[in-house]
Amino acid sequence: MEVLVIHGPNLQLLGMREPDVYGREKLDAINARLKAVAEAYGVGLECRQSNHEGEIVDWIGRSPERFSGIVINPAAYTHTSVAIRDALAAVRLPAVEVHLSNVHKREPFRAHSYVAPVVWGTISGFGPLGYELALIALIRLLKGKENAKDEGAN
Amino acid sequence: MEVLVIHGPNLQLLGMREPDVYGREKLDAINARLKAVAEAYGVGLECRQSNHEGEIVDWIGRSPERFSGIVINPAAYTHTSVAIRDALAAVRLPAVEVHLSNVHKREPFRAHSYVAPVVWGTISGFGPLGYELALIALIRLLKGKENAKDEGAN
Amino acid sequence: MEVLVIHGPNLQLLGMREPDVYGREKLDAINARLKAVAEAYGVGLECRQSNHEGEIVDWIGRSPERFSGIVINPAAYTHTSVAIRDALAAVRLPAVEVHLSNVHKREPFRAHSYVAPVVWGTISGFGPLGYELALIALIRLLKGKENAKDEGAN
Amino acid sequence: MEVLVIHGPNLQLLGMREPDVYGREKLDAINARLKAVAEAYGVGLECRQSNHEGEIVDWIGRSPERFSGIVINPAAYTHTSVAIRDALAAVRLPAVEVHLSNVHKREPFRAHSYVAPVVWGTISGFGPLGYELALIALIRLLKGKENAKDEGAN
Amino acid sequence: MEVLVIHGPNLQLLGMREPDVYGREKLDAINARLKAVAEAYGVGLECRQSNHEGEIVDWIGRSPERFSGIVINPAAYTHTSVAIRDALAAVRLPAVEVHLSNVHKREPFRAHSYVAPVVWGTISGFGPLGYELALIALIRLLKGKENAKDEGAN
Amino acid sequence: MEVLVIHGPNLQLLGMREPDVYGREKLDAINARLKAVAEAYGVGLECRQSNHEGEIVDWIGRSPERFSGIVINPAAYTHTSVAIRDALAAVRLPAVEVHLSNVHKREPFRAHSYVAPVVWGTISGFGPLGYELALIALIRLLKGKENAKDEGAN
Amino acid sequence: MEVLVIHGPNLQLLGMREPDVYGREKLDAINARLKAVAEAYGVGLECRQSNHEGEIVDWIGRSPERFSGIVINPAAYTHTSVAIRDALAAVRLPAVEVHLSNVHKREPFRAHSYVAPVVWGTISGFGPLGYELALIALIRLLKGKENAKDEGAN
Amino acid sequence: MEVLVIHGPNLQLLGMREPDVYGREKLDAINARLKAVAEAYGVGLECRQSNHEGEIVDWIGRSPERFSGIVINPAAYTHTSVAIRDALAAVRLPAVEVHLSNVHKREPFRAHSYVAPVVWGTISGFGPLGYELALIALIRLLKGKENAKDEGAN
Amino acid sequence: MEVLVIHGPNLQLLGMREPDVYGREKLDAINARLKAVAEAYGVGLECRQSNHEGEIVDWIGRSPERFSGIVINPAAYTHTSVAIRDALAAVRLPAVEVHLSNVHKREPFRAHSYVAPVVWGTISGFGPLGYELALIALIRLLKGKENAKDEGAN
Amino acid sequence: MEVLVIHGPNLQLLGMREPDVYGREKLDAINARLKAVAEAYGVGLECRQSNHEGEIVDWIGRSPERFSGIVINPAAYTHTSVAIRDALAAVRLPAVEVHLSNVHKREPFRAHSYVAPVVWGTISGFGPLGYELALIALIRLLKGKENAKDEGAN
Amino acid sequence: MEVLVIHGPNLQLLGMREPDVYGREKLDAINARLKAVAEAYGVGLECRQSNHEGEIVDWIGRSPERFSGIVINPAAYTHTSVAIRDALAAVRLPAVEVHLSNVHKREPFRAHSYVAPVVWGTISGFGPLGYELALIALIRLLKGKENAKDEGAN
Amino acid sequence: MEVLVIHGPNLQLLGMREPDVYGREKLDAINARLKAVAEAYGVGLECRQSNHEGEIVDWIGRSPERFSGIVINPAAYTHTSVAIRDALAAVRLPAVEVHLSNVHKREPFRAHSYVAPVVWGTISGFGPLGYELALIALIRLLKGKENAKDEGAN
Repeated sequence: MEVLVIHGPNLQLLGMREPDVYGREKLDAINARLKAVAEAYGVGLECRQSNHEGEIVDWIGRSPERFSGIVINPAAYTHTSVAIRDALAAVRLPAVEVHLSNVHKREPFRAHSYVAPVVWGTISGFGPLGYELALIALIRLLKGKENAKDEGAN
Repeated sequence: MEVLVIHGPNLQLLGMREPDVYGREKLDAINARLKAVAEAYGVGLECRQSNHEGEIVDWIGRSPERFSGIVINPAAYTHTSVAIRDALAAVRLPAVEVHLSNVHKREPFRAHSYVAPVVWGTISGFGPLGYELALIALIRLLKGKENAKDEGAN
Repeated sequence: MEVLVIHGPNLQLLGMREPDVYGREKLDAINARLKAVAEAYGVGLECRQSNHEGEIVDWIGRSPERFSGIVINPAAYTHTSVAIRDALAAVRLPAVEVHLSNVHKREPFRAHSYVAPVVWGTISGFGPLGYELALIALIRLLKGKENAKDEGAN
Repeated sequence: MEVLVIHGPNLQLLGMREPDVYGREKLDAINARLKAVAEAYGVGLECRQSNHEGEIVDWIGRSPERFSGIVINPAAYTHTSVAIRDALAAVRLPAVEVHLSNVHKREPFRAHSYVAPVVWGTISGFGPLGYELALIALIRLLKGKENAKDEGAN
Repeated sequence: MEVLVIHGPNLQLLGMREPDVYGREKLDAINARLKAVAEAYGVGLECRQSNHEGEIVDWIGRSPERFSGIVINPAAYTHTSVAIRDALAAVRLPAVEVHLSNVHKREPFRAHSYVAPVVWGTISGFGPLGYELALIALIRLLKGKENAKDEGAN
Repeated sequence: MEVLVIHGPNLQLLGMREPDVYGREKLDAINARLKAVAEAYGVGLECRQSNHEGEIVDWIGRSPERFSGIVINPAAYTHTSVAIRDALAAVRLPAVEVHLSNVHKREPFRAHSYVAPVVWGTISGFGPLGYELALIALIRLLKGKENAKDEGAN
Repeated sequence: MEVLVIHGPNLQLLGMREPDVYGREKLDAINARLKAVAEAYGVGLECRQSNHEGEIVDWIGRSPERFSGIVINPAAYTHTSVAIRDALAAVRLPAVEVHLSNVHKREPFRAHSYVAPVVWGTISGFGPLGYELALIALIRLLKGKENAKDEGAN
Repeated sequence: MEVLVIHGPNLQLLGMREPDVYGREKLDAINARLKAVAEAYGVGLECRQSNHEGEIVDWIGRSPERFSGIVINPAAYTHTSVAIRDALAAVRLPAVEVHLSNVHKREPFRAHSYVAPVVWGTISGFGPLGYELALIALIRLLKGKENAKDEGAN
Repeated sequence: MEVLVIHGPNLQLLGMREPDVYGREKLDAINARLKAVAEAYGVGLECRQSNHEGEIVDWIGRSPERFSGIVINPAAYTHTSVAIRDALAAVRLPAVEVHLSNVHKREPFRAHSYVAPVVWGTISGFGPLGYELALIALIRLLKGKENAKDEGAN
Repeated sequence: MEVLVIHGPNLQLLGMREPDVYGREKLDAINARLKAVAEAYGVGLECRQSNHEGEIVDWIGRSPERFSGIVINPAAYTHTSVAIRDALAAVRLPAVEVHLSNVHKREPFRAHSYVAPVVWGTISGFGPLGYELALIALIRLLKGKENAKDEGAN
Repeated sequence: MEVLVIHGPNLQLLGMREPDVYGREKLDAINARLKAVAEAYGVGLECRQSNHEGEIVDWIGRSPERFSGIVINPAAYTHTSVAIRDALAAVRLPAVEVHLSNVHKREPFRAHSYVAPVVWGTISGFGPLGYELALIALIRLLKGKENAKDEGAN
Repeated sequence: MEVLVIHGPNLQLLGMREPDVYGREKLDAINARLKAVAEAYGVGLECRQSNHEGEIVDWIGRSPERFSGIVINPAAYTHTSVAIRDALAAVRLPAVEVHLSNVHKREPFRAHSYVAPVVWGTISGFGPLGYELALIALIRLLKGKENAKDEGAN
């Protein structure tokens, strides 16, 4: 079992600029953390970052050839990309949406996500820890340790 | 360190009615799971459920006397209760919002949360597992294993 | 077969204040009328009134243990309570919504009902008679004298 | 005393097409049921159906010459006809609005009724039984068995 | 030169019902007044009333065969008929829109007119006198006593 | 009997600039036309123009000391001045609103008038002729030749 | 196999008025073109035009007695007729919606179609050619040369 | 004469995933069908697919160097790309917009197209056949067999 | 004469948490101040606080048995409770609404009050002093020292 | 210490017209009342009225030269004047907004105030008494008898 | 060639109050800067400031008698004055709109400008330098050194 | 000091197509003009154009390595790209937004800019001259000749 982690636009800047806003942890450190989690579960992991909506759509379109699930932080494209939503819906891989910040504390347009209705679930506001939780959730749900039937309505 | 878990309206019905929608797991089973997680981290835990907005507000108002953080699934009150939002904002305890279902796949009014802007973060769509993730996030952030400064902007 | 009648907030004042607006008939009189109808059909009946949203949610949550259907006038909670809606949807008992006044002749916010989409049907504008019609409808539909399949689309 | 029943557009198709949606009962059967109810109350009844907004406006405009009240299912014109609303408001005959289906479970535009604010009350969601209830309500209110003063505000 | 006067739905009831709302003057009396005005200007006049949107569209479509201009009170169709708007735009006859009442003192939906953007001008709120003013305006503008070029921007 | 005519902002430019938009007739010529109409009816007339909202409010506030009615083209203040609306409502003099152009053919914000709900009626789209019609309407209604009771509902 | 073509309001004026807007081709010529196409496919064809919403609803209601599919240009009723939408949905005949002009280049209210969600597909902007394309599409889909299963999601 | 066909994001997945939604026909098969149509008309054809908004904008910007017209299915970019709209408007090549599915049966945000107001016409809901119709329309209009002047207003 | 003071949700926390936001004065101190004011006017006073919407509705419903007027700070329920609004409207006791903070400087949803249209007046932004002003206003108006007829329109 | 009282447009008419709406008390009487209050507190007072937005902006701009605080009833300009808001924000004098009537019982547009977010607090609905309360509030807060820090959040 | 510079409401306070918000430069200093720029280009300049919308409308109305272009900072009237917009549109002098601050970083209502659609261009966010840029732009465009034809579409 | 100039989508077409809309000046000529301005100020300059949102985000993300400020015409991405906004906000380089045309004279969706709230200022409507003004503003502000503190509030 292998999982694809997709970091959206501007996340290459993590930890390098404005540590008060983006935190001090670089993207590589987050990816290393995720690899450790994946290894602990015996799951493969590939991490990619792109500022290009089209490239992210390409990756998702080809993902079923190799991956069993997707962890995605669509960043700015969360709010503007129907193409990423359609790609996720088309490949039908289990996916989890992550946001570093609590989007509900920011500009109103960030409260709307085109991606949320086509993923399994969403985790926002926990910084880098959120990625770990997302990966754990994805793996546990994929491994059947969690019965999808037990997902509730509230 | 002790954590308060609050289950909002109708969650007493979990697992007893409509297992296809609400899952087969009863609220007691979820609470047992959470106790196991808390124990693993050496943290105390109290789980409560109420259908009364005012009672939830009472609980939050008194929570700083005893608790270090709150995990809350406000259920239907997510979308209608300014009082719960104000209570959380007033006591200023770290809090995490959980939803069993992916609220973005349901009626449009469920996409708006009065509570989200006053909590640390939100987890939705993972069924009972979401509670576990919320509790882990709260404990790890409280224990300082995660530096709040490292929470980012996306 | 037993039916639960729920009167929402402020309906305890019926007939005692402002007879020009609320009519001269007290809530007890309405309940008496409903008992007469129920008896005529050989059906049990219990009438309750509460100003507490949470208490109404409690009642609905426990209703399947004893009742076959619900007649509810959610009054002010019609327009603000997702919790009552979710309770009705969760227990899946046949339910009928009643309003004494014609809500469409009043403030615009009264035209929206959170409850309407989860009940069998709605009756509004006929004063106390509306309760009788609601009870008759519920009983006849429950008794299978009316084929649910024959409910149409317009 | 005579009552006019008006069936709006497409109701001529009742029972003949899509019984799963429209029910299996034909319009004639509904009219027969209504005649039985009217006879039981000693009231005359005339049932008409039209797909023409203008014809319905004509009928309402002339109705006071002969009828004491109107039962109307405006169907699609519920949502688009100011002309029918104005006709009902102009003739000032007591009127009751019926809908076979629960309009609140369908497309959002069906939740708005131009007619509702000018009728006595509305009954929706009970299939053909709704017509019976509407006729009973109209007759009882007209016969003064129900004191209009007793109609309340909720 | 001949002018067509079109009275929209429910105007056949003028003067016969609710004189406090609709005034005491019958439609025939208004038509007689208009004939007097037309004669004074040496202009022919034909007055028609219909409750049928389609019939009004028919009349407008054929109007260029005989008429030089149109005075129209679209009544309820003002707010709902794109078909009448399109008919007036298609035949390109000079037209004037009249309303007996001041539509801006009534329900908000009456403030919007589909017809207004395709007529020369609108007169509302003056009761039957409004028709006379509309006819005078149409005739004077048609007779070139008023230079269309002199119509201003405010 | 004396009538006050108020021309709103920028109308001092009439006929001097952009004759294709504003027409070729100057404001003085329009005032002269109106004087002729007033004389024919034996009515006094005073015409004023101001670009100052406050000055127009002053004039309206003092108008009952001398005038029996008001013809007003509020021009740009139509869409933005609650103060002029309140002044007209306070003095309760009969008033008529005029617009040279058909406001419904222009920018959407011009379709809303703060003034319309507090005047007797509105005339728009007929250029300078509109002023004449407005004055005639005001005088005739004031002189009782038209019975206000006969103003209808459409 | 026979197809019904319905031309909505004002289309009787095609080619006779405003050739720059409506084109120079009369409705008869369009109908002749369509007959040629139908003959080439060995399909019967009947073309009707009406300005009456109710008449169009009548036609659609009776269409299954004789026709296998419908080509409809609802013209102005596109934007205002729930009755035509409901008729098409009730009879469940395959239908295609045509518009001569590109409705997206015109007033904003023309961008909304009540009819579009209940037809197979929509063709707009190609003038009379659009009717031919609509007829070809309908026939090919009906003849099974196109597998409905092959209709995609974008 | 040569025509450019542009397939937007995720259309490379056609026929390979979710045949119940996207149909069983692959993009290559559709392109082959289009080549056959083009050949029958003696017209050259080039088909391209991209998930990159910028690449599609590049293609459109250079298209006048070689192509006489464009058939475009902007897929997800239909609803979000002002850049593609501006490119089409800038090069002023005749263009036709195609959608495989009936966008009006899907999420509300799919009812809005940034592209529609700058193309000749739109065809949606006919699956792969829609591409053929679009190509035929484009070629016939380009070849002058259809007089653009004959495009009408409805 | 006795007055009921109702403090809404979370106000039990006043002065105990976040003095920079809520001020340093505890609820008891405010109540003491109000008692002093009441005594100075020779008026009885009872102060209550509740986080339960239903309890507040209960209190208001029973208030006419003992009180002549109500001072209420509905806090969070200001924005969400139709039930409190209906209770105040039903008992028809003179009431005054108070807010400690200036609600117009906070989140937009706080600018809307369900309660404001059914009270005599509103006072917001003056901290604890606002309660005193509200009580003085209520007493003076009740004592007839202020003529209700002298309340103006601006 | 001196306080400036500003009465906005149409308030010069107070007590002279429509006593049922505006009350019987003239503006001079209100000013006299305010002088008495000010004297009791040993504070100077100047009362001004203007119908001119610009003049009010002038006054506020120069107010810091002489005054310590402002009581303002912006009347109609409440809802339309960004200039008065900006003036109050620029001079940063403590200010209190008063309205004679309860603006929430009137037209919806009166519920919005441009001024409220830049003043200390707002008092509405108490007629002339409201001015007294506003002046008392301003003086007490200015005199430091009330600690601004004690202004709360609800 | 002479240019008129108009400073809108509250700009007389520049540099005197709140230097952190409004900057330290007084209006006179800005005017002096602008005179220097104008002299360098051999252009006359007159600078005026007013808090009165009507006075600004007066100035614009008379400006063509003497000026070739206008630089205007409408300040608060940007968002509320249709009269200033209409004046600028009527005189048709080239005009440039300036804002000291970046209006898009402030309250949402400041993002809308009534003036922008009738001026040549807008400059906002550069403080006093913005006035210089605006004057340079106006002079260069007026002097024909910039070809208006070269103004592009993006 | 070096400045980066970014031209957004479709600007490569400048001067080559539709000179009446886009002007006759090619992008190279604009860049040459800007180089001349930069040289006059002794500042380095690099000009780039891209149709790819992701590429623009890449450039901005790397810009602090070499550039001191950015001049950007985001063209179509102005209205749709949160990613470009986030990139500008992340790197925190001073930036100026330019638009060739006056966006407020075009389609309503062009009035909204995602970019404007994160740049120093915006210049629109002056054609190629606008770029020069933007560059001058950026350089002068960067060189400290303009004190950022002097940027005002209007």
